[in-house]
Amino acid sequence: MRRILIASTSTVHSSGYLTYLQPALSTFFEGIQQLLFIPYARPSGITYDAYTARVSEAFKPLNITVKGIHEFKNPIEAVQKAEAIFTGGGNTFELVNQLYKNNMMQVLKSAVNAGTPYLGTSAGSNICGLTMMNTNDMPIVYPPSFESMGLIPFNINAHYLDPIEGSTHMGETRETRIQEYHTLNQTPVLGLREGSWLEVQGSLIVLRGSYTARVFKAGATPFELESGSEVLL
Amino acid sequence: MRRILIASTSTVHSSGYLTYLQPALSTFFEGIQQLLFIPYARPSGITYDAYTARVSEAFKPLNITVKGIHEFKNPIEAVQKAEAIFTGGGNTFELVNQLYKNNMMQVLKSAVNAGTPYLGTSAGSNICGLTMMNTNDMPIVYPPSFESMGLIPFNINAHYLDPIEGSTHMGETRETRIQEYHTLNQTPVLGLREGSWLEVQGSLIVLRGSYTARVFKAGATPFELESGSEVLL
Repeated sequence: MRRILIASTSTVHSSGYLTYLQPALSTFFEGIQQLLFIPYARPSGITYDAYTARVSEAFKPLNITVKGIHEFKNPIEAVQKAEAIFTGGGNTFELVNQLYKNNMMQVLKSAVNAGTPYLGTSAGSNICGLTMMNTNDMPIVYPPSFESMGLIPFNINAHYLDPIEGSTHMGETRETRIQEYHTLNQTPVLGLREGSWLEVQGSLIVLRGSYTARVFKAGATPFELESGSEVLL
Repeated sequence: MRRILIASTSTVHSSGYLTYLQPALSTFFEGIQQLLFIPYARPSGITYDAYTARVSEAFKPLNITVKGIHEFKNPIEAVQKAEAIFTGGGNTFELVNQLYKNNMMQVLKSAVNAGTPYLGTSAGSNICGLTMMNTNDMPIVYPPSFESMGLIPFNINAHYLDPIEGSTHMGETRETRIQEYHTLNQTPVLGLREGSWLEVQGSLIVLRGSYTARVFKAGATPFELESGSEVLL
């Protein structure tokens, strides 16, 4: 059975890396001894080694060792044989670019659909949707496609941000950007606030964490979904 | 001689559409009777007609009539014969996509380099750079390339935003995003704050407006450029 955890962010304000997720991860990764980490999104251009070391540190309390996909001679085989997989945040364009460059997108999708537990945060969550078209990231590289794994039948907007009251900045709000997306596309979008995550078991998708999530559908008024609800989009 | 005006935004806070730019536009478009408008970026998915009507209204005080490129049977010829051209803001991915789809990118570049006065705001400014890779927009459509006109030897980050002090949001700051860009690319980036614009005459590029602009170069510490300075990147 598919088991996927799709988190808006790795880190919430004034808390350590993955700290807020530890209780959920402890259950989700029960029995797992080694985690395969995909560091392709490289936040701030951090090296794969440094990123993997950071993740390694965060998984020590769970007694899980972490190995970066770049450490394997055959990364495709590494995905196919992994006990569990984690794709970290950073730049979604670079992540998708590297996944295609390494012929990994389909392999990763197949492994997760076959039951390998998968954790995504931020960029690693965006690629669970049908496309990466609702990322907030800067297009610092041109990937061969915006199509992503499509593990869920909608797209994710990670780090969803409500309009800032009293802001004098004239750039579009997140809501406006997603509504622009819907003038050209039909795929529903889930705005996941920092501190929220989706728990996927088979075909059941449930919203977890302390916040509501915002649902955007083409041609409809956006609405809030309560934590604990099944996400049926 | 090339004459280009590259503005961070069409609108500053608590002011009307293009109002803050009126004095500069009045000089820049002196003697121009008809302006060709490119509405492809469609902010909030507005129709080409509605967007062109809004621009038309803004140019009335300057006694300039405005015609949208979609009103011409032969849009390529329309660009080649235009007295002056304005590309408005909206979504840069969709703008670039439409420019390629209509075989317009090279035609527009040639016209501007041959001396047709060009005004860009926001997305219309991003395309003046070498690539659109420093846009803040959401990738709502997959354009055939991120390469843009390259009228200037660097990229633009429009609506440049300083880090918000005391923000609890964990998404990357603008500065971090541009620094991530420089882990993969060498092209310098100019962060243009809302209310700033570049005035290009031939090969001379000068920063105008009330604010400094932030200069980002690969491997160097970012710095501020004073208004009135020549931009040599």
